Amino acid sequence: MNVIGVDLGGTNYAVGLVDENGKILARVEGETKVHEGPDAVVRRISDSILSLSKAGSVLAVGVGSPGSIDHHTGTVRFSPNFPGWIDFPLARKIEELTSLKVFVENDANAYALGERTFGVAKGLEHVVCLTLGTGIGGGVITHGILLRGSTGIGAELGHMNVMPNGPKCGCGARGCLEALASATAIRNFVRDGYERHRDSSLFRDKAPDLVTPKDVFDHAKMGDQFALEIFNIVVDAISAAIGSLINIFNPQLVVLGGGIANAGEFLLTPIEERVKNYVLPTMFGSYRIALSQLGKDAGILGAASIVYERLGGK
Amino acid sequence: MNVIGVDLGGTNYAVGLVDENGKILARVEGETKVHEGPDAVVRRISDSILSLSKAGSVLAVGVGSPGSIDHHTGTVRFSPNFPGWIDFPLARKIEELTSLKVFVENDANAYALGERTFGVAKGLEHVVCLTLGTGIGGGVITHGILLRGSTGIGAELGHMNVMPNGPKCGCGARGCLEALASATAIRNFVRDGYERHRDSSLFRDKAPDLVTPKDVFDHAKMGDQFALEIFNIVVDAISAAIGSLINIFNPQLVVLGGGIANAGEFLLTPIEERVKNYVLPTMFGSYRIALSQLGKDAGILGAASIVYERLGGK
Repeated sequence: MNVIGVDLGGTNYAVGLVDENGKILARVEGETKVHEGPDAVVRRISDSILSLSKAGSVLAVGVGSPGSIDHHTGTVRFSPNFPGWIDFPLARKIEELTSLKVFVENDANAYALGERTFGVAKGLEHVVCLTLGTGIGGGVITHGILLRGSTGIGAELGHMNVMPNGPKCGCGARGCLEALASATAIRNFVRDGYERHRDSSLFRDKAPDLVTPKDVFDHAKMGDQFALEIFNIVVDAISAAIGSLINIFNPQLVVLGGGIANAGEFLLTPIEERVKNYVLPTMFGSYRIALSQLGKDAGILGAASIVYERLGGK
Repeated sequence: MNVIGVDLGGTNYAVGLVDENGKILARVEGETKVHEGPDAVVRRISDSILSLSKAGSVLAVGVGSPGSIDHHTGTVRFSPNFPGWIDFPLARKIEELTSLKVFVENDANAYALGERTFGVAKGLEHVVCLTLGTGIGGGVITHGILLRGSTGIGAELGHMNVMPNGPKCGCGARGCLEALASATAIRNFVRDGYERHRDSSLFRDKAPDLVTPKDVFDHAKMGDQFALEIFNIVVDAISAAIGSLINIFNPQLVVLGGGIANAGEFLLTPIEERVKNYVLPTMFGSYRIALSQLGKDAGILGAASIVYERLGGK
């Protein structure tokens, strides 16, 4: 039976009608317009859900939302992306407007469920997912169970410490993975290194503030020294974190998603190599590292798979 | 009903008759004598089990063993401490000699089960345990489940990377927690720093090779600069690792056991303080860090609790 997945972001949202094979049959996208307040956002999402559910019967709705989620009740306890959403009963509000059953999950957790249901981790019981984007999110499935933790805010893999006294992270700590390997971190490295590396090819056509992580990877590929320096910091930080995660979770698969992972094999190959410096020799052969194949549909498919996780099976 | 716990170490073993409240009613201890081969070790352990089981009926036997264990079959796949034990059917061999049901678990996992069944983690569903000894072991219970991982060798928390290019670890990697905060690491720091710190009070009465981790803590307490330097490295490494583990597992409790944890509040207090530098602010208030109270009985009680874990409840 079809389900609806809602990828709720701080800037945009996307709602998709998804079949049991992970095919997106129809979709509606729009701006979240958080400034209009939670009820306006709920109305907008609900209208999109209703327009998609007209086509035929829908099992339920899954919503992937940033922030701390009470997954039992579908309440957004708080979310840095949604100022003022304190203990906001998101599931109940959408249910009232759509008459459909609604489940809410943290978006990084939803992402991991999506990989297990429709992606490269299909059917696996031990999976670690990293979403390398503006920030770094994490989702873990261990012994078939989504790791939420005691208060539902676990799997914050972007805030593993990978460098004592490393760069300052948005969370206040120093040396978090996110402070070394997110898009934000890469932009910071570019800006902070500009004065010392004015001759870098990165700055030939662009002001430092306009250089993107993709530019850094492209110029590293072409051999630019400064770009390679940043690239190496990113690869090392991700490799150390993955090494620790393998030693902790003994997973079958580590999945890399998010915008940074679009760098593809150029990023994956050195990570696979350097991870070996961090994992126990007994782990050799027990794990794989793979790039997500869900692409821009990861949000909708992750959200859709929440429904299958809650209702069991497909 | 009483159970028997077997704490199988590379040098010594201990077998205890344990009641449902974690009281050790009787015990037998001895040398493992690994060099005599697995069958001799099995005979010795089985004799101890039989001598304890004479007193009354026993539900089953739990064995905590170092190394990689197939917990389904009770087979020791391999163990650095037991050379030559490759795919050795430990459970079956003991069952043949004792006619009792035998369960085998990795010793660090057994330790975590012991803390949950009888220790400071009693009844909790989200617990991270670190055993700070010659090496550093780990055991994790998440959502009530013992984290074994896909091939049963997970929760190797001593091999989380906490310092890029840090000291070399026994596993071959650099910067593992074990290479910075185990008894072995502390002894290495003492030995490597001797030439630069000949005036340290550590060396007033002892040759560098004889200085123990306890000496280092005692002299740090008295203000010796070199001892404090080592103490700070140890505290920082443990704090960073615990911070990452809290962000990953969102546990209710982190338990510190093993010989190093005997330093007590002198170690715990600065760790509690510094962990705050590494955990997400959203985690504040969600966790506690505590010292194990099981003391020298941790091995037997952990092994005994394997039985309760397998057979469900007490």
